[in-house]
Amino acid sequence: MMSAGRTLLLLTLCGALGGVPAQQDWTDLIASEMNPARIEEFLRILTEKPHLAGTPDGAELAEFVRQTWLDQGLDSAHIAPYDVLLSYPDPDKPSYVALVDENNDEVFRSSAGEPPVDVDPPANISSVVPPFAAYSPSGVVESTRLVYVNYGRTSDFDLLKARGVSVRRRIVIARYGKTSRGRKDRGATGLIVFSDPREVVGTGRGRTRKYPAGWYAPGTAVQRGHFLYTTGEGEPLTPGYPAKDYAYRMEKSESDQLPKIPVHPIGYTDAMELLRLMRGYEVPDSWRGLLDTTYRYGPRFGRPKLSPATKVRLNVNVRTEQATIHNVVGIIRGDVEPDRYVILGNHRDAWNLGAVDPNSGTACLLEITRALGEMMKRGWRPRRTLMFISWDAEEHGMHGSHEWIEEFGKIMSDRAVAYINVDIAVRETYTLRARATPSLRPLLKEAAKKVPWPEPTPDGNTLYSVWRQRSPADSEDPDSDPKISLPASASDFVPFVRRVGVPILDLAMVHRYTITYPNFPLYHTAYETFHLQKAYIDPEFKFHRLMSQLWAGVAFSLAEAEILPIDVSEYATTVREMFHWLKDEYGDQFETAQISLDALESAVANFTLAAAAFEESLSSIGNETSPIVARMYNDQLMQMERAFIDPLGIPGRKFYRHTVLSNGLYSTDTFPALGDSVKRMGSDWTDPGQASKLRDVMEQLSIISFFIQSAANTLATPASTVF
Amino acid sequence: MMSAGRTLLLLTLCGALGGVPAQQDWTDLIASEMNPARIEEFLRILTEKPHLAGTPDGAELAEFVRQTWLDQGLDSAHIAPYDVLLSYPDPDKPSYVALVDENNDEVFRSSAGEPPVDVDPPANISSVVPPFAAYSPSGVVESTRLVYVNYGRTSDFDLLKARGVSVRRRIVIARYGKTSRGRKDRGATGLIVFSDPREVVGTGRGRTRKYPAGWYAPGTAVQRGHFLYTTGEGEPLTPGYPAKDYAYRMEKSESDQLPKIPVHPIGYTDAMELLRLMRGYEVPDSWRGLLDTTYRYGPRFGRPKLSPATKVRLNVNVRTEQATIHNVVGIIRGDVEPDRYVILGNHRDAWNLGAVDPNSGTACLLEITRALGEMMKRGWRPRRTLMFISWDAEEHGMHGSHEWIEEFGKIMSDRAVAYINVDIAVRETYTLRARATPSLRPLLKEAAKKVPWPEPTPDGNTLYSVWRQRSPADSEDPDSDPKISLPASASDFVPFVRRVGVPILDLAMVHRYTITYPNFPLYHTAYETFHLQKAYIDPEFKFHRLMSQLWAGVAFSLAEAEILPIDVSEYATTVREMFHWLKDEYGDQFETAQISLDALESAVANFTLAAAAFEESLSSIGNETSPIVARMYNDQLMQMERAFIDPLGIPGRKFYRHTVLSNGLYSTDTFPALGDSVKRMGSDWTDPGQASKLRDVMEQLSIISFFIQSAANTLATPASTVF
Repeated sequence: MMSAGRTLLLLTLCGALGGVPAQQDWTDLIASEMNPARIEEFLRILTEKPHLAGTPDGAELAEFVRQTWLDQGLDSAHIAPYDVLLSYPDPDKPSYVALVDENNDEVFRSSAGEPPVDVDPPANISSVVPPFAAYSPSGVVESTRLVYVNYGRTSDFDLLKARGVSVRRRIVIARYGKTSRGRKDRGATGLIVFSDPREVVGTGRGRTRKYPAGWYAPGTAVQRGHFLYTTGEGEPLTPGYPAKDYAYRMEKSESDQLPKIPVHPIGYTDAMELLRLMRGYEVPDSWRGLLDTTYRYGPRFGRPKLSPATKVRLNVNVRTEQATIHNVVGIIRGDVEPDRYVILGNHRDAWNLGAVDPNSGTACLLEITRALGEMMKRGWRPRRTLMFISWDAEEHGMHGSHEWIEEFGKIMSDRAVAYINVDIAVRETYTLRARATPSLRPLLKEAAKKVPWPEPTPDGNTLYSVWRQRSPADSEDPDSDPKISLPASASDFVPFVRRVGVPILDLAMVHRYTITYPNFPLYHTAYETFHLQKAYIDPEFKFHRLMSQLWAGVAFSLAEAEILPIDVSEYATTVREMFHWLKDEYGDQFETAQISLDALESAVANFTLAAAAFEESLSSIGNETSPIVARMYNDQLMQMERAFIDPLGIPGRKFYRHTVLSNGLYSTDTFPALGDSVKRMGSDWTDPGQASKLRDVMEQLSIISFFIQSAANTLATPASTVF
Repeated sequence: MMSAGRTLLLLTLCGALGGVPAQQDWTDLIASEMNPARIEEFLRILTEKPHLAGTPDGAELAEFVRQTWLDQGLDSAHIAPYDVLLSYPDPDKPSYVALVDENNDEVFRSSAGEPPVDVDPPANISSVVPPFAAYSPSGVVESTRLVYVNYGRTSDFDLLKARGVSVRRRIVIARYGKTSRGRKDRGATGLIVFSDPREVVGTGRGRTRKYPAGWYAPGTAVQRGHFLYTTGEGEPLTPGYPAKDYAYRMEKSESDQLPKIPVHPIGYTDAMELLRLMRGYEVPDSWRGLLDTTYRYGPRFGRPKLSPATKVRLNVNVRTEQATIHNVVGIIRGDVEPDRYVILGNHRDAWNLGAVDPNSGTACLLEITRALGEMMKRGWRPRRTLMFISWDAEEHGMHGSHEWIEEFGKIMSDRAVAYINVDIAVRETYTLRARATPSLRPLLKEAAKKVPWPEPTPDGNTLYSVWRQRSPADSEDPDSDPKISLPASASDFVPFVRRVGVPILDLAMVHRYTITYPNFPLYHTAYETFHLQKAYIDPEFKFHRLMSQLWAGVAFSLAEAEILPIDVSEYATTVREMFHWLKDEYGDQFETAQISLDALESAVANFTLAAAAFEESLSSIGNETSPIVARMYNDQLMQMERAFIDPLGIPGRKFYRHTVLSNGLYSTDTFPALGDSVKRMGSDWTDPGQASKLRDVMEQLSIISFFIQSAANTLATPASTVF
């Protein structure tokens, strides 16, 4: 039911304009239509019970979304199913970590699950799948040696090696954080991962606000997650092709993605039982968590009470299984350019009840579609097609989005304007975290200026002003723009960027950055409940509404503007920054090795000039542009991103095809493949022993120069030069 | 100067229509503007001196074409240069084949070049590069063993193996024909190739019509050519990326394309000197050429006069060299949809004076552009952009077109409507040989109906009627359509098809098919002269004009029709035929092995239905179609072909990305990768030893089913289903 205020607004607008409101008025209408109470109700329904990918409840929730979209008045809503390899714990044989004494008796065993809590409204915690590491092989591993490996990053293993601490044939224990879960085993026989209070409690008020008393994690909370070693292939058995029912599937043994050693996650209460027994040298400061014990490397463990024969036992019972997953696709067909798609996506599957990850986003999306359905009843239809996708199996490795892109990526390359992702919409309410392909940054900032901040604060009264204040790109500059990152590895926008080259946004309301929790303390634990949102995160759902307004606002601009709000000069800025980072960090080495950066510098400059010339040309077209002329400019704006796609992919990661926005193996601030190649160089680039690696550098330099020049070429006036 | 008749025609049309003529009238005007005498003059100029890729004369001819296009009034004409690896004979050390006696004295040496002939008009034969095998390594190889390997196809080597005749560590001699030049050496130490009279004289009138007395080959004529083992990579040192000046180049030793053993070509006079000495068993009938000797396998050779110590010596002095090649790109910018390109291409570089290969085509192209330039002066401009490309380095391995597509393929994917290739325009004047991607077959037939046949013949008075009569697709059916083949490996359309998925046509006037000359007798010899055309092929250049009319006619349709003349149902027909061939030939095996063809059958059926539904939808739009609606249909027509492109390529040939129209390793009439996989199976598909190959079959079946379904998906009404 519409409020009186909104009815009045609508009537006024209709009356004042003599009928159907104009574009900006539709934006205002949609924004005013967003209703926090409805979002709250959606979330309550979505989080009633678990809805894991590949389960009957998962399929049921897909059908709920589909039916909701039809009821709301979308033109269509279909299921797009795929048969993918999923992973579940064996329901009859729980996995656990144990300490076993010399008589083979267990003196300690980790908890089988997270205990229920008594909250209002109640939460069906015991129905949540027990904590497990998805795709872990099953097995029992025992060792008298346990090595603490900090986060288990490459740099952590390097440090251990330097200290002479081996992990081979030993069980290792790592804390969650800082890196993706799937990683090389490096000769260890088993992996225990735990949530350290450093990451899930902190040193502030978290210590007294552990769920159910607050937002932070109790020692019984355990983070679930998948442990695939993914580099963009999609679900493990059908790399490069969609997992349709008829698809050929490789053998599991042929897949490089599946972990080779058993893995199990635990909470910090259980972790303490292991860590307090560890011996060996003390770890450096940066390796220390917040448990009340001295963190040591191991490998020996045991205290006077335990004999040297004490073993760690890791008993994992996890099975892979092929199952059908269900993406849901809802469509509002554009009335002028139906073959141009603006896509809003959010995944629906959850490890738990999903009240934060991901269904805070799902609830926002369902409110957007409800509002748009209302607009449609009043005569509105977007210029371009709006497509809404509820992904499945994101938690298992972004399978729903990858398989869908494997199936429809060619069509998306030709028709998709942009993809706007919201995974977790609201995990806290401090500020906005935004990722964007560079060309959509200005659009996002403009949209944020139109969204009111729903609480009084000295930081401003729009989302933009608060965001800018709280998350500056440059914390030393009071006039700084807000921080917008480049796309990372984290969610369903990845195949849009790296396989196809579609511009993307990824949006979320988050906590303060200075507190370095990976994700948020209760991430993927059973305690992500409706109660958590209602009691501690967004009691009035005003920030959910803010997210709906922002998400709908950017989508609306993309769907309605005659000329697409894609900013090519912003892209050139990012490319220049990547070039300058490379030159600043490695310019001397290039010079010493007598490798010229001229071609790259030239390509970057050409791209900047081409972007400027394009924008000038665009600004000179009048208001009475012929539809074909507008279409031509729009096609160029759309296709520019595609120019960065290399069908051959980056070295060793052939499904990461975006030559600017893929993740390299190493972390650099330059072009990924070139960055990897310079990182692999030793310090003396003239050393003949490095000749082969130096040639890799030269090769990658040549390749990225070509792709940047290609992007410049797409912006030239068609048929005005040699293409 | 326009003839009085044409002036009258133009004035009448302009007067009758009150100004600028309508589309069909432009077609007629252009056709009537084509002038044989002008084509003849162009050819005379083009063939004055050699113009080999990478030479100053080659560059000069590029500049001539560029300037001609500017003078003719095209909007622009640019050079698109690349630095590629070419190959030339050492000018100071001729290559040869010799017989060497036991004293190491040469008792025979092959000719250093083809002798000049006295013809009118004179031809600069001695300036033509001596016969050589491009990219052959240099070296001297000697052997007392010489093995005749017929054409040197896989089946020929298989037969030798079955007969117990080894080629390892021996020199082999093969006749030109039936297969591409680049091939595996199979352990031989050297390769001599020769033109056998079977292929270049025949048993008919050829025996008395050897050049300069006719069209057939004298024993002194030698065929040049490249011997790269190409599978679509482009020039050898930059696979996947364009050979720009700054490009990274691999080492020659890293390239799989370069032949490993020395190769040299000779004529049949010289070949006789070797073949008449060969001993061993007689070859089967199908291996016999027409030289007056008994064809034997070898490996021994020598007659009573020669001692057993006689050796064959192969002395090759050929160098690779990086050189700049020059494509020329001329543009007439479309006035309604300038971002849609109709591309006419012909290569310009020649091994010799080029009067047949390729400059008969170049002359036709220059007449087309001249005629279009005249039309532009009278107010005409095409709806879509017409692009004319004069390729370089085709003879060295299609380098000009491959590098250009490596550079601009992404833009072509988005904007190119079709590519129409003419390599050799007129090699004889019996009938048309046409290759086409299936969707352009109807367009070609319609265009051929509008081209008059320039001589009286009972076979008809249009190109179409004569062509249909002389080259039926089904020789047993008097009502058969003319034969139009699928695209093969042969010329500059290859990267358009296999890298990008742009529809193509390839056109040529040829001799009767029943005479199985590879190409034509004087192909790539120094005797391809202007005199050859003028005296024996097309004395009045009427068939050159026919080719210009046809070429311009199809280009014009593509550039002007509001809805593109791309026929998707024709494509479905071809796909069905490929499926049925597979089912007919291998259906039993699939059944025995319990592999269902349902998914493929289903995809093929869906594609047929989708094409029919698309065409029905198209036929229902009225004449007053909005430009955006027309554009939408046209985009779908264009993009359908792209759906068949797999970025991963077909197995072992990753740059052959078209899953329907690439060449497999084997010759089949079905989808290439699936065809290869079934050809590799032994007869018993249930044999456990074949399990791995059977899985390849299943994998390829799955993949092609997906791509055919993808093509169907591109034809669905946008935003009407799950994409």
